[in-house]
Amino acid sequence: MRQKLTLITLGVKDFQKALAFYEGLGWKKSQQSQEAYALFPLGGIVLGLYPLQELEKDITLNYQQASFSGMTISYNATSEEEVNAVMQEAERLGATIVKPAQKVFWGGYSGYFKDLDGYVFEVAYNPFWQINNEGNLVM
Amino acid sequence: MRQKLTLITLGVKDFQKALAFYEGLGWKKSQQSQEAYALFPLGGIVLGLYPLQELEKDITLNYQQASFSGMTISYNATSEEEVNAVMQEAERLGATIVKPAQKVFWGGYSGYFKDLDGYVFEVAYNPFWQINNEGNLVM
Repeated sequence: MRQKLTLITLGVKDFQKALAFYEGLGWKKSQQSQEAYALFPLGGIVLGLYPLQELEKDITLNYQQASFSGMTISYNATSEEEVNAVMQEAERLGATIVKPAQKVFWGGYSGYFKDLDGYVFEVAYNPFWQINNEGNLVM
Repeated sequence: MRQKLTLITLGVKDFQKALAFYEGLGWKKSQQSQEAYALFPLGGIVLGLYPLQELEKDITLNYQQASFSGMTISYNATSEEEVNAVMQEAERLGATIVKPAQKVFWGGYSGYFKDLDGYVFEVAYNPFWQINNEGNLVM
């Protein structure tokens, strides 16, 4: 198995509302998107939005709502100010703030929000991590 | 907000076992990894493994086990044979097969497994999608 993951899929309860949230962030979907399948290329991975019931059928598992499923997705910002701006933008679009942006024990600055379907996103500025011109963490 | 996500973090119940699973796939962690924080660069996004209890503290939410939390992460293979090989490799390392690899309605071939902590991964071959030399979906 190559050291690669290609696609994160979020099963969404209201496709149009979820689409409006991610497009509201200024994101542009790929032309390969379909009527009820949105694909946002993120440079190295793609975020997909797909109706939850369809995803359940494909996986053959029933969805269970969890306050926190154990997985988070992070957006690494280049400053504390950008963290604040992204958290405010997400909240304005209907996200729920889980933990307001603040200085944290590991020396950075971060906050968490849940999108409309309850998926947990971290927005973080880590002064010890470098971000290149493509927005990728330099590892 | 740039059209970018930088990091997927999986909260894991047994860090050493989870690490052995992902290293067992042949993946190499970054030197920026720490004793209880593994970082696997995936070309455009990083997969992090972090002890679940620590992640709960940081997020200020309690974990709830869900059969299916609504989110999946996909590995797009370049052939049906590669899908089969990856599914077998994951199973050998202790993953649970949720749906054996099979031809699916959208014209591709895919299966699902859960890793040791129950996170759902799809392994798919999509004949309508192109994968470039870096392993990225061409969108």
